Amino acid sequence: MSDNATDLDFLAGIKVVDFTQFEAGPSCTEALAWLGAEVVKIENPKTGDPGRRLRPGQPDDDPYYFHMFNANKKSITVNLKSPRGLALVQDMLRKADVCVENMAPGTIERLGLGYDDVRKLNPGIIYCQVKGFGTGSPYESNLAFDMIAQATGGTISVTGEKGRGPVKPGLSLGDTGTGMTMAITILGALHKRAKTGEGHRLQVAMQDAMLHYMRTNFSTQARSGRAVERDGTHSGGGSNAPSGLYPCAPGGPNDYVWIMTSRANPEHWARLCKVMGREELIHDPRFATPRERVKNSDVLDAMIREWTGTRSKHEAMAQVGGAGIPAGAVLDTMELQNDPTFEQRGIMQVMQHAQHGPFKMPAWPVRVDGKPPRVAPSPILGEHTVDVLTRWLGMSEDDVTALRRENTL
Amino acid sequence: MSDNATDLDFLAGIKVVDFTQFEAGPSCTEALAWLGAEVVKIENPKTGDPGRRLRPGQPDDDPYYFHMFNANKKSITVNLKSPRGLALVQDMLRKADVCVENMAPGTIERLGLGYDDVRKLNPGIIYCQVKGFGTGSPYESNLAFDMIAQATGGTISVTGEKGRGPVKPGLSLGDTGTGMTMAITILGALHKRAKTGEGHRLQVAMQDAMLHYMRTNFSTQARSGRAVERDGTHSGGGSNAPSGLYPCAPGGPNDYVWIMTSRANPEHWARLCKVMGREELIHDPRFATPRERVKNSDVLDAMIREWTGTRSKHEAMAQVGGAGIPAGAVLDTMELQNDPTFEQRGIMQVMQHAQHGPFKMPAWPVRVDGKPPRVAPSPILGEHTVDVLTRWLGMSEDDVTALRRENTL
Repeated sequence: MSDNATDLDFLAGIKVVDFTQFEAGPSCTEALAWLGAEVVKIENPKTGDPGRRLRPGQPDDDPYYFHMFNANKKSITVNLKSPRGLALVQDMLRKADVCVENMAPGTIERLGLGYDDVRKLNPGIIYCQVKGFGTGSPYESNLAFDMIAQATGGTISVTGEKGRGPVKPGLSLGDTGTGMTMAITILGALHKRAKTGEGHRLQVAMQDAMLHYMRTNFSTQARSGRAVERDGTHSGGGSNAPSGLYPCAPGGPNDYVWIMTSRANPEHWARLCKVMGREELIHDPRFATPRERVKNSDVLDAMIREWTGTRSKHEAMAQVGGAGIPAGAVLDTMELQNDPTFEQRGIMQVMQHAQHGPFKMPAWPVRVDGKPPRVAPSPILGEHTVDVLTRWLGMSEDDVTALRRENTL
Repeated sequence: MSDNATDLDFLAGIKVVDFTQFEAGPSCTEALAWLGAEVVKIENPKTGDPGRRLRPGQPDDDPYYFHMFNANKKSITVNLKSPRGLALVQDMLRKADVCVENMAPGTIERLGLGYDDVRKLNPGIIYCQVKGFGTGSPYESNLAFDMIAQATGGTISVTGEKGRGPVKPGLSLGDTGTGMTMAITILGALHKRAKTGEGHRLQVAMQDAMLHYMRTNFSTQARSGRAVERDGTHSGGGSNAPSGLYPCAPGGPNDYVWIMTSRANPEHWARLCKVMGREELIHDPRFATPRERVKNSDVLDAMIREWTGTRSKHEAMAQVGGAGIPAGAVLDTMELQNDPTFEQRGIMQVMQHAQHGPFKMPAWPVRVDGKPPRVAPSPILGEHTVDVLTRWLGMSEDDVTALRRENTL
């Protein structure tokens, strides 16, 4: 068995010991796996990563979530609470380039695998931790999931309708967004380590990572002097008009198109007037400057709504976007899933999974020399125990069988 | 002048020619700059990156947005439409490890700096492009900004209140989220290139990158068979209850706390009952199992609202979070800006900018050996023209002055 699962070999030969679970950690190590690292999940022999089954007490019947965050990885089972299991993982850490964990605060240390323990085994390791709140934060020992990071990191406060209560952005940025910042830092550390052999300790908190994704909002606040308010159907900061979500025919829950004219490019406004057959408005004094258009945006919004209301979102996007004005139909998850162009371009790919059959999912979105890396299955629990222990540690298959018998694996 | 601006040297010696503007491209190259790469912005001598001034026709008076996405970078001015300017940038590309651009479709090729041109100059370069839509997409030549990527990439469709229209997540994930995926791929390519010298072409589309951040939603859809609907005040998928946003005293626009009990950890529910002084409910048959709690979540939500309504969001978070239940107050941008613990931990840092004075902003969120890299200023337009041209190309200061006189720089 080769050590990298995908066909991209940027990180071929890099060994990652992966203690992560659910999403914030797994999305980080999955990025490394997409690039060709050998990522080995260390899983509890009984149940594995809790992300494998979101319905506790039931069999492994909800694999989709797990597939999404564990493509291209390997899995071995180890009982970390047995001395022999711990020793075995310590041996793996001696061989590893990177290890990553996102357990509850204090857990990895109680297992005897905290930073101070692991760096003694392998001073050159890149040791990475993802937590909800940062060391030194008043909430340092609190538990967190995606929504807690999004509440305390500001993203919920700026999301919602004008004048109404906040809502959570509908995607798990607190998890995957955090994982991306850790993956970037690991790759930077690996770049230097290839020359110097240096190890490092890397730590990120989900709340802290959200601030990085909120930079545009902090710049708006710096200009206005006020906390950023919600206005989720118009563009941020209110400085571009017309710009927003406009309802389309036939009026379903996602029949909307976003049309945006930028004050940085006055051509957008002129082009939009032409598309709508309203060229006389281009130089109308009510709308002639960006400032006037912001002032009279209610009139403009009503006019555009009237126009979009007689078209489907796809027609509106084709007409407006095709005329050189930024425009986008609001596409729902099923429309995206069923759009064949994503699969044709490799952006969606079908994972062939031995237990769960073919499963179409978003792949790594960046194309390398014309195409994204090819997806390999997420691992069955313990699928690679023999492969990894024989290859990494020089054990025999009989050794592995003996360890299984004594419940170490 | 040293070549890396921050105190982190993971990418010391890596040269990036940066043609990016606004945010999707600059957030990618800024990540490389945080890790210590020398990132040189190539800017139009008259106006520079349009992100420098979001109010066209006015002086450089809105620097906050620019600071956010260009910390730790350098800037040189070059007139790319002059033959001498083009030749000079070609010379820089011969010395570069990476170049990145996010101009409108077709623009970089018209300048004579498309992939086929640049790889002839430097076969080992990592040549990177960020666009709104992917090559081969029906919208390949359309313009896009953040909101267009979020509309067509699905994030808007899943964001908003239950039963109401969609809203845009209030942060620019279409830009920064995309930049993160490109930064990761560049770093992977650099890792291999350090051994083999290989160059690569990397391309990402903002729409495609959004699908990667929507993986949890696609897994929910795979389970239900239906497009994911909006329910931004409860947890995704509706499988955990109680879980959601609960209003707190004194009832301001962001006086809410998110409280989450996970069906994967039944202790959360028992702990919450204790915190609320309602231990009798733990085994109440209406709430005794995760399934029953989902079924009766309206009753639970009302009960929790009553409890949270008599407390501030900070008190509620301290009490609930402190008892081992995931909980987070909804913090707005001003509360985050004014919370001193972020600055104490280096998560927010003060940029000392020669023109615009001290400016506090979110830094790189990952700590390396205990602290995040130190912020260096974003560059004044053309600030490093002499530094870079003398050091990279061996020109003299007189050469630079002559080029300035003939409007090449």
